[in-house]
Amino acid sequence: MPVGTLGTVKAVAQDVLEDLGAEIILGNTYHLYLRPGHEAIRRMGGLHRFISWPRAMLTDSGGFQVFSLSALRKVTDEGVRFRSHLDGSSHFFTPEHSMDVQIALGADICMAFDECTEYPADRSRAEESLRLTMAWARRSIDHFHAHCHEVPWHQELGGRRQSLFGIVQGGTYRDLRRQSAEQLIEMNFDGYAIGGLSVGEPRELTLEMIAEVLPLLPADKPRYLMGVGYPDEIEQYARLGVDMMDCVLPTRAARHGLLFTSEGRLNIKGKKYAEDQGPPDPACDCPVCRRYTRAYLRHLMHSGEALSATLNSIHNLAYYLGIMRRVRESLHPEGWRSAVSMSPSRRIDVPLV
Amino acid sequence: MPVGTLGTVKAVAQDVLEDLGAEIILGNTYHLYLRPGHEAIRRMGGLHRFISWPRAMLTDSGGFQVFSLSALRKVTDEGVRFRSHLDGSSHFFTPEHSMDVQIALGADICMAFDECTEYPADRSRAEESLRLTMAWARRSIDHFHAHCHEVPWHQELGGRRQSLFGIVQGGTYRDLRRQSAEQLIEMNFDGYAIGGLSVGEPRELTLEMIAEVLPLLPADKPRYLMGVGYPDEIEQYARLGVDMMDCVLPTRAARHGLLFTSEGRLNIKGKKYAEDQGPPDPACDCPVCRRYTRAYLRHLMHSGEALSATLNSIHNLAYYLGIMRRVRESLHPEGWRSAVSMSPSRRIDVPLV
Repeated sequence: MPVGTLGTVKAVAQDVLEDLGAEIILGNTYHLYLRPGHEAIRRMGGLHRFISWPRAMLTDSGGFQVFSLSALRKVTDEGVRFRSHLDGSSHFFTPEHSMDVQIALGADICMAFDECTEYPADRSRAEESLRLTMAWARRSIDHFHAHCHEVPWHQELGGRRQSLFGIVQGGTYRDLRRQSAEQLIEMNFDGYAIGGLSVGEPRELTLEMIAEVLPLLPADKPRYLMGVGYPDEIEQYARLGVDMMDCVLPTRAARHGLLFTSEGRLNIKGKKYAEDQGPPDPACDCPVCRRYTRAYLRHLMHSGEALSATLNSIHNLAYYLGIMRRVRESLHPEGWRSAVSMSPSRRIDVPLV
Repeated sequence: MPVGTLGTVKAVAQDVLEDLGAEIILGNTYHLYLRPGHEAIRRMGGLHRFISWPRAMLTDSGGFQVFSLSALRKVTDEGVRFRSHLDGSSHFFTPEHSMDVQIALGADICMAFDECTEYPADRSRAEESLRLTMAWARRSIDHFHAHCHEVPWHQELGGRRQSLFGIVQGGTYRDLRRQSAEQLIEMNFDGYAIGGLSVGEPRELTLEMIAEVLPLLPADKPRYLMGVGYPDEIEQYARLGVDMMDCVLPTRAARHGLLFTSEGRLNIKGKKYAEDQGPPDPACDCPVCRRYTRAYLRHLMHSGEALSATLNSIHNLAYYLGIMRRVRESLHPEGWRSAVSMSPSRRIDVPLV
């Protein structure tokens, strides 16, 4: 899932995302809550209409950004008080408030409010953090079910509702991860995410946690691994059974001139590309590789031109989406059915099981 | 003509420009000479191939930017010594060197090396400046004809050559303008530009100079008014007989949130657009007006998102190109023929006379 923090996948227009085959994009609840505000988006019919995106969307819970971006956080059982990174204003997020905001935004998939346990975290810290996340998951799903009919497009789409995913936490402790998954399944979410990984731990540990949790999660519901990763990682995780992943990496790396290609990583700033008239990736048939040369992309980057971020991002997104398409085809040549479906054009593919 | 200073119309990809119907774009010789360098572009087959633009291009002479951007200029009859605005390095531009650079870039239309007379300039200053520009015009065309076969694509396009336009100067003195036009026509350029206007003088004076010069210029060759203007100006000048204009205004204004619409100028930053779900211009059928709202464009601008410059620029370019299309249709409903033609896809329309 390309990440569209503020209601735009940075530097890439919606029609281009459609042409690339992006079926779902992310919005960040924390950012959209602060600007332009969830009530404004509700009044305008929800996030899909506001940004003109007819396919699926997912909003995170806001928790991760509250912990990573805001200042002066104070966490209690009730919720988190924090100061905006924009203007220093004070805000209070609770599981209930996160649900209200996400219902107003109206993405197809909402996420339960959680605390992303940092790495490293000792056993008692991880236990305490998980206790909070599980209590918040309960409050999230209860509040969500009581209010999900308030989504702006509820009438319009024949009374369909948003989906809510729970988030497995537990740090790097296998038994806590297992306990977290079991408790969430008990609550019966529409899908399950694995959070709190790829936050600095060694990759073997990431894999160990994924391998522990994945078999516990229902195969007929989407399984979402949050915040990963490099191209080889997303392929590996998909083959392990992960259905959904999101990461800013393809677009953020693109803005720094790092291209992912079939020949490995390519730093387009390199002097050796100054007169290289080959495409960024000879094996890629994205609109950028079909039309532009490495020399031109290097020139745009060196000149600080806006088109640099756009073209680099388009290629990297095409590369990521291509990986996932090939993995899906190889895993399930018989085809796909749509899960978490809101309308014919808003769907997430899951294997035909 | 949209301006693509460094080989990119800022924030707008080439395929979008094609879809908007842009038949010709500008490149700035001064900028491209400094980065990536004309010899690099020559080795890569010329500017068209370097930036992947199959339609027409025009390069200016570099003179205007030398005078407006560089430091420590020293003008002699021979040429101009200046320091790069990028790294302070010292360079010397002569009419001959400007031609060499423009031939290496290989745009369809090159411009004679001139001095853009500032406003206000007293009579003796304007006379002296014009003397220099006319001497440089002679040297430009002589050097151009001796070397234009060195254009990178000379073989490839069956021996066709670039076109060279002369530039009428003379400040705000009607007789100097007339003298300038007559001398250039004597030299027999492929087209004629009016330079040194829209540099701070009152608009009546601009109009007076245009009205003085235009009737002198051959109607069967393109007449190009440089560096204008606002939407009402370009319509007015086109109706007076101007065939070509260029200006950074539609794209630069776009980056500052100023949209040109059928209802007048619209500053998209305005609070009143915060929840305005109408299109930027209700009378416009550009891809931006068909898909996005004023509220979304305002949000992108306020959030400092890259997509803001892209969408605003696309709309403004569509608006400008639409004005010119309507003017041409109303002036010459019988159709057009192509002047300054390099290939079927590289053409500039002039009236059927």
